[in-house]
Amino acid sequence: MKNFTYYTPTKVIFGQDTVSKLGQLAKESGAKKVLLHYGSERVKKSGLLPNIEEQLDAEGISYVELGGVVPNPRLSKVYEGIDLCRKEGVDFLIAVGGGSVIDSIKAIGYALADEEEGDVWDFYNYDRKPKACMPIGVVLTIAATGSEMSNSSVITKEEGGIKRGCNTDYSRPRWAIMDPNLTMTLPQYQTSCGAADICMHTLERYFSLPGSMELTDSIAEALLRTVITQSKILMTDPSNYEARAEIMWAGSLSHNGLTGCGSDGGDWACHRLEHELGGLYDVAHGAGLAAIWGTWARYVMDAKPERFAQLARNVFAIEDKESVEATALAGIEAMEDYFRSIKMPVSLTELGLNPTDEEYKILAQKCFKTTGPLGSMKKLMPEDMEKIYRAAL
Amino acid sequence: MKNFTYYTPTKVIFGQDTVSKLGQLAKESGAKKVLLHYGSERVKKSGLLPNIEEQLDAEGISYVELGGVVPNPRLSKVYEGIDLCRKEGVDFLIAVGGGSVIDSIKAIGYALADEEEGDVWDFYNYDRKPKACMPIGVVLTIAATGSEMSNSSVITKEEGGIKRGCNTDYSRPRWAIMDPNLTMTLPQYQTSCGAADICMHTLERYFSLPGSMELTDSIAEALLRTVITQSKILMTDPSNYEARAEIMWAGSLSHNGLTGCGSDGGDWACHRLEHELGGLYDVAHGAGLAAIWGTWARYVMDAKPERFAQLARNVFAIEDKESVEATALAGIEAMEDYFRSIKMPVSLTELGLNPTDEEYKILAQKCFKTTGPLGSMKKLMPEDMEKIYRAAL
Repeated sequence: MKNFTYYTPTKVIFGQDTVSKLGQLAKESGAKKVLLHYGSERVKKSGLLPNIEEQLDAEGISYVELGGVVPNPRLSKVYEGIDLCRKEGVDFLIAVGGGSVIDSIKAIGYALADEEEGDVWDFYNYDRKPKACMPIGVVLTIAATGSEMSNSSVITKEEGGIKRGCNTDYSRPRWAIMDPNLTMTLPQYQTSCGAADICMHTLERYFSLPGSMELTDSIAEALLRTVITQSKILMTDPSNYEARAEIMWAGSLSHNGLTGCGSDGGDWACHRLEHELGGLYDVAHGAGLAAIWGTWARYVMDAKPERFAQLARNVFAIEDKESVEATALAGIEAMEDYFRSIKMPVSLTELGLNPTDEEYKILAQKCFKTTGPLGSMKKLMPEDMEKIYRAAL
Repeated sequence: MKNFTYYTPTKVIFGQDTVSKLGQLAKESGAKKVLLHYGSERVKKSGLLPNIEEQLDAEGISYVELGGVVPNPRLSKVYEGIDLCRKEGVDFLIAVGGGSVIDSIKAIGYALADEEEGDVWDFYNYDRKPKACMPIGVVLTIAATGSEMSNSSVITKEEGGIKRGCNTDYSRPRWAIMDPNLTMTLPQYQTSCGAADICMHTLERYFSLPGSMELTDSIAEALLRTVITQSKILMTDPSNYEARAEIMWAGSLSHNGLTGCGSDGGDWACHRLEHELGGLYDVAHGAGLAAIWGTWARYVMDAKPERFAQLARNVFAIEDKESVEATALAGIEAMEDYFRSIKMPVSLTELGLNPTDEEYKILAQKCFKTTGPLGSMKKLMPEDMEKIYRAAL
């Protein structure tokens, strides 16, 4: 077991009609001028944004709005937000949306708190480290990335299609309002992408070479079982409140650090491999992860087959087979079957991609250039990465 | 599933040699003058307190000391701490110990932040509610109460032997250093009391009438399985680092709110019934809980036998019996067998008590007087409480 730090200061207000607490929370946070950041106009039409604005009005808190955040949130939108907030004297940030909106607002927060007033991309390009972030509140409308409690933010620079993450505790939101009802109207594809992403945040931490911990493992397995069960329910009953709630809460716990306590930090190769896909082809994050995972798992399995066998036993109730390797493989297949059952791709072809020879090389080179060798289960060099991309076709 | 708030702002620094981070943490917290609060002189002899003092010296942070906190921490010691801190101008509180020391320092913290400068007992006697608490850091030496992350503090007023709790988020520690090595030298009895207390914090939340949630239930069951497995290991191998670490982390997660998300807040009858035992007879908290639980469980089982059957299945791997009730009963017996296996009492007699007829009535009356009807599984009136105490003999 490895030493760890666990820090999850976000106050979660979870359940039915919890959006009504927003005004009070903003006031308690000392907000005077708020940025309301969001994605599509859906939040206006649904009445969510007007509701939030009414509450801010009632508390005498003024606000400006900036919508238009897209999946794989763009650096240009972040710049737009920074300019707006500086001009308007914003002192508190509220994200109304899913992971993309939250990630975008975290980047804005880093920039606004940056005493050097340098380029915010420096933080994502690993040139500088943030030393602060403007305080953030969240109204979550998509269960997926866990950004509402996490230290993580991922931004895509349009020029060159570069997708990079920046992780610091400064960006963990002050509070997050989570009403599962807000996720009811999500299309099936987006719901499933979310479930895949949630699973992957736990799987990335679960697969680590040196570290393990009974309690952390058991919690991770509990979380995976829950997401698998409940996301299948949503395939036929998308308005099931209990299932929406289970998945929403699992999304937060999956990425706030809980499922990695005592491990070596996890593997994260799939996330890095997917980031290059997302940067180059703008695919949905959860779908990209599902499309890569099985191939990655087979590629690294022999480094620690027992770990994959444990997944098979404790998540899929698969009985031990003739060898650890056979059990491990059955676990990988079961995970892929699950992805299929919620209509997630398990190959690049199913994801709609067919990279050229040159693109395979570019993907691997970009991946290596950013972080060097990838992964904990097996150290992946550019040639390994290219093999995985090719095998994932 | 019920709405919930989840708020665990404590930064946990967990693992080997993490005490060395204390000076830096105290400095980052802005501490100028610290109270070092502890129990027995053991922390001096072990070198722990001198180590902490050296670090504070190196950071230029001054400190005063107050030891002598005992299990079921006393109000008189709290008063002593308040006077000392006021006289010395203390601005940051550090508890070096287990739950008793942390609970005592929380009470001191409430008093020091009390603008009315009233009697701190008011907060424990439910006459007033705290509006703030002086910031607290923790160096944990006993895995048991979870007070290092919880909102809870329990103090005993010597006059009348009254044991009362005060729960507010203000008292959640800023940070907690947890090195499992610090718990290595605990006597077996204290280690087992801790394990029993940890189980009970989860069981109290697990047994609730209206609410349930697959994810929360699965985490609770994972936690119980872990504590049961690992505390048994410590019976024969008390220096097992991994087992000490599992239990230490389970202690924090068991009482920080995680295992109650989505339930109705839990039952807590056993805790209240034990508080009266602790107040009157000064028994160890974990042992008192173990001594009561089985009797309580049989008394309330018929309100929701399915819940006890779930415990049997998912924690003890008991196969379904001829009826839900039979499975439920097997689960209760398995829990009692576990308590016995770590040498915890499962009756008042084994706890060393033999109350008089009058004392049974006093216990029940005091219990009812404090909080009215007890519990969620079944509403317990004074006559129910007396019956449980008597049946627990």
